[in-house]
Amino acid sequence: MDPHYVAGFIDGEGAFCVSIGKHKTLKRGLEVRPEFTIEVRADDRDVLERICVTIGCGAIYDAAYDRYGWYPHVKYKISNKYDLCTYLFPFLDACPLQAKKKDVYKMFKEIVLLARDKKHLTDAGFNRIVELREKMRALGKKARTHKL
Amino acid sequence: MDPHYVAGFIDGEGAFCVSIGKHKTLKRGLEVRPEFTIEVRADDRDVLERICVTIGCGAIYDAAYDRYGWYPHVKYKISNKYDLCTYLFPFLDACPLQAKKKDVYKMFKEIVLLARDKKHLTDAGFNRIVELREKMRALGKKARTHKL
Repeated sequence: MDPHYVAGFIDGEGAFCVSIGKHKTLKRGLEVRPEFTIEVRADDRDVLERICVTIGCGAIYDAAYDRYGWYPHVKYKISNKYDLCTYLFPFLDACPLQAKKKDVYKMFKEIVLLARDKKHLTDAGFNRIVELREKMRALGKKARTHKL
Repeated sequence: MDPHYVAGFIDGEGAFCVSIGKHKTLKRGLEVRPEFTIEVRADDRDVLERICVTIGCGAIYDAAYDRYGWYPHVKYKISNKYDLCTYLFPFLDACPLQAKKKDVYKMFKEIVLLARDKKHLTDAGFNRIVELREKMRALGKKARTHKL
């Protein structure tokens, strides 16, 4: 698959997300969980499998939305920091995103690199991660006033 | 802009739509209105302008969704049959879509070519257009049971 095609598809359908969780056994008690996903209707699974091969890592999961009466979906996901740093980041640095999602990607990458280097265990690093995540969320919102 | 990037973006965000309208002055009283659109949040207008230049035709419109509390959006649109045949179709035939939207595109193209050749004024042509449009709609639906 042409890597520029993949970049275009990600600008349309990809999502960069970071959650911060509590973790009993970690030093600071906090864990940074990054996640890159692309979700499509299940009958488009083939395109995700080919994107997975083109990027070189990740996995595909089923996502059921019976409660909404929607068709089943499938989700391509990379959440492992090593995979993000080794496969996804070099890929997107070579075939850059073109829409405002490129700014979300930039912040996502900074967060992952900070977390990989254990900077989230310092006050400065943790505050920076929270600040970047707020900015990421503002850029991704459809609505001004409330979550959809 | 890399044309494969544009194809990937269209697979994610593009929409092919055909409406059939009544038209007082036409022979059969029916008009086939095809429309290709890409809609994004207004702060991503730049990417649509670059796609517009890359494809070589079309126009960009503002779309307000104040009633939903959403951010303003912008829409790139090609609805002229000549522009579709001269610019969009050769573009997408050279840089093909990869997701199931490629099947929607195929039907959309057949409808536009039929309409361009005035085949919608014959019973056979008109029935074929209606049949293709039903198939296009089924592929585009998120929900099994109702429109969203």
